[in-house]
Amino acid sequence: MTGTRAWHLKARPTGLPDMSHFELKPLDLPALGEGEVRVENRWLSVDPYMRGRMNDVKSYAPPFELGAPMQGGAVGTIVESHSPDLAVGDTVFHMMGWREQAVGPASAFTRAPAMGVEDFQWLGNLGLTGATAYFGLLRVAEAKPGDVVFVSAAAGAVGSAVVQIAKAKGMTVIGSAGGAEKCAWVRELGADAVVDYKAQPVVKGLMEALKAIGADGIDVYFDNVGGDHLDAAFAAARNGARFAICGMIEGYNAGPPPAFRYIMRVIAARITIKGFLYFDYLSEMPDFYRDMGGWIASGAVKSRETVRDGIEAAPQAFLDLFAGANVGKMLVRL
Amino acid sequence: MTGTRAWHLKARPTGLPDMSHFELKPLDLPALGEGEVRVENRWLSVDPYMRGRMNDVKSYAPPFELGAPMQGGAVGTIVESHSPDLAVGDTVFHMMGWREQAVGPASAFTRAPAMGVEDFQWLGNLGLTGATAYFGLLRVAEAKPGDVVFVSAAAGAVGSAVVQIAKAKGMTVIGSAGGAEKCAWVRELGADAVVDYKAQPVVKGLMEALKAIGADGIDVYFDNVGGDHLDAAFAAARNGARFAICGMIEGYNAGPPPAFRYIMRVIAARITIKGFLYFDYLSEMPDFYRDMGGWIASGAVKSRETVRDGIEAAPQAFLDLFAGANVGKMLVRL
Repeated sequence: MTGTRAWHLKARPTGLPDMSHFELKPLDLPALGEGEVRVENRWLSVDPYMRGRMNDVKSYAPPFELGAPMQGGAVGTIVESHSPDLAVGDTVFHMMGWREQAVGPASAFTRAPAMGVEDFQWLGNLGLTGATAYFGLLRVAEAKPGDVVFVSAAAGAVGSAVVQIAKAKGMTVIGSAGGAEKCAWVRELGADAVVDYKAQPVVKGLMEALKAIGADGIDVYFDNVGGDHLDAAFAAARNGARFAICGMIEGYNAGPPPAFRYIMRVIAARITIKGFLYFDYLSEMPDFYRDMGGWIASGAVKSRETVRDGIEAAPQAFLDLFAGANVGKMLVRL
Repeated sequence: MTGTRAWHLKARPTGLPDMSHFELKPLDLPALGEGEVRVENRWLSVDPYMRGRMNDVKSYAPPFELGAPMQGGAVGTIVESHSPDLAVGDTVFHMMGWREQAVGPASAFTRAPAMGVEDFQWLGNLGLTGATAYFGLLRVAEAKPGDVVFVSAAAGAVGSAVVQIAKAKGMTVIGSAGGAEKCAWVRELGADAVVDYKAQPVVKGLMEALKAIGADGIDVYFDNVGGDHLDAAFAAARNGARFAICGMIEGYNAGPPPAFRYIMRVIAARITIKGFLYFDYLSEMPDFYRDMGGWIASGAVKSRETVRDGIEAAPQAFLDLFAGANVGKMLVRL
């Protein structure tokens, strides 16, 4: 490597982004100051929420700055340390994202707990992805053993974790995914029924799935998609159903605003709908590491990754998320 | 009066109902059995939720039967009693609805508590209307002193109660209503700002109202309307906002499904949305009678009625609800 490079935000997209919005440029990193460390990144995370940060809109995460390096989840190795807290060779995860090297105070990096898992798991089932699934399902939607849980984008990173956590907790699960291959994987993860949303309207598929498992409705909906999936969940909700709204990937890029035929059922069925962000639950991370670590060790929670190689691949991997090109977690390996 | 008459459901509407869906017909009432009473109705309630019961769809209240008398709130006087529980001359309220006389077991009728209020209040601020406002605002949305509360249909029966309860509890209130006359009344009720949704897009009016009161968003939305009002509330929600969904009058009659440009804010702002029905809170009615009775006695909660005379007037009064013809509670006086 001749120098550090990072992806910069070149222009703000209005609809679907394309390669013209990103630029890979050299980055001058300073010599380490007192208490600072240098990290060589090994894995970059590629997540749908990053689309929101490309807009110049105040939201839960500040927008990416135009012309500045893009931030995002990453795992790397400490290659130089001026801090007593982190040693050369430590595996750390951090949010400085799409770059080869990162420099900063030791406090900006978290040493990966010694759990005997592959490094990329800190971006997946043991990272933002898994924590989002865990807190969304168990805390936000308050899903309980015996509940019928509907999960959209069930072959995606978060969705596949939701399916498996729900099964580990004794719930009945219906997962939706696009196409036969993804649906087969969702079944493999333990889902009791699947809805192939490319083969039929979601609401029809969901009603058939419910019939197949002998249930008259859903208690919980874990939403990664919005739009027709959310509307189908309104149609199928049992009284007192809880919806955890994690993402609405259908709405991340400009398009007609989603319309809802069944939204009025929110009243009759007394549905509770809650939007959430996993970092509101940071104080409960020890619970998450204990449970998720146990499930990974026992094989109750498996993962699958869609891996692209080389920092050059990051923006296209990101764009491919919106076309549903990933099964499981989308990652870039450096 | 030569005999008892009742409005019957003649046909089920698909969109907006009209007079052809209702029929006023004689009704044979039996002689009283043991424990039964006969009530002469004085006031009939006309409520938007009744539109849902005209459909043949399972919901929280069973559908009206085709060809059978329509049910609904009513206040009347006991004129004959075979029960020790109710005496001739007692004022009672009940759900047997749109008819001149009703016969049934004493348990089907509730004697109006002695609170020195006009009889029709048992259909309004001390009835379903006021209880819906009270429990929706204070229990479902958990509105607290200091909150900024947005209420749609604020000149309607439920909305006008919400405005006044919120003010009595020390909240800041923005009410929306259609037209200058209604908006003036909403201000008279104590609203800090009003949005005339006929004069501009709701979202624009709401943002201007917020600026006028020096607030950067809403903590609570009490929804009687759905559609553009709900979407504006998404746009204006502060972090942790709570929405109580009471009704969606825009969606009660067939039309294009509502679309939402700002629904994605449910995630970033961690909005909680809950549908509710007041009768889930029946166990707390003593709290409601105590608080609402006090507010009515002190003048903190006032009411206004739109009154139509004669049983013949009931269906048109009902249809007029959907055109926004009422200010305050729509009632039929017999």
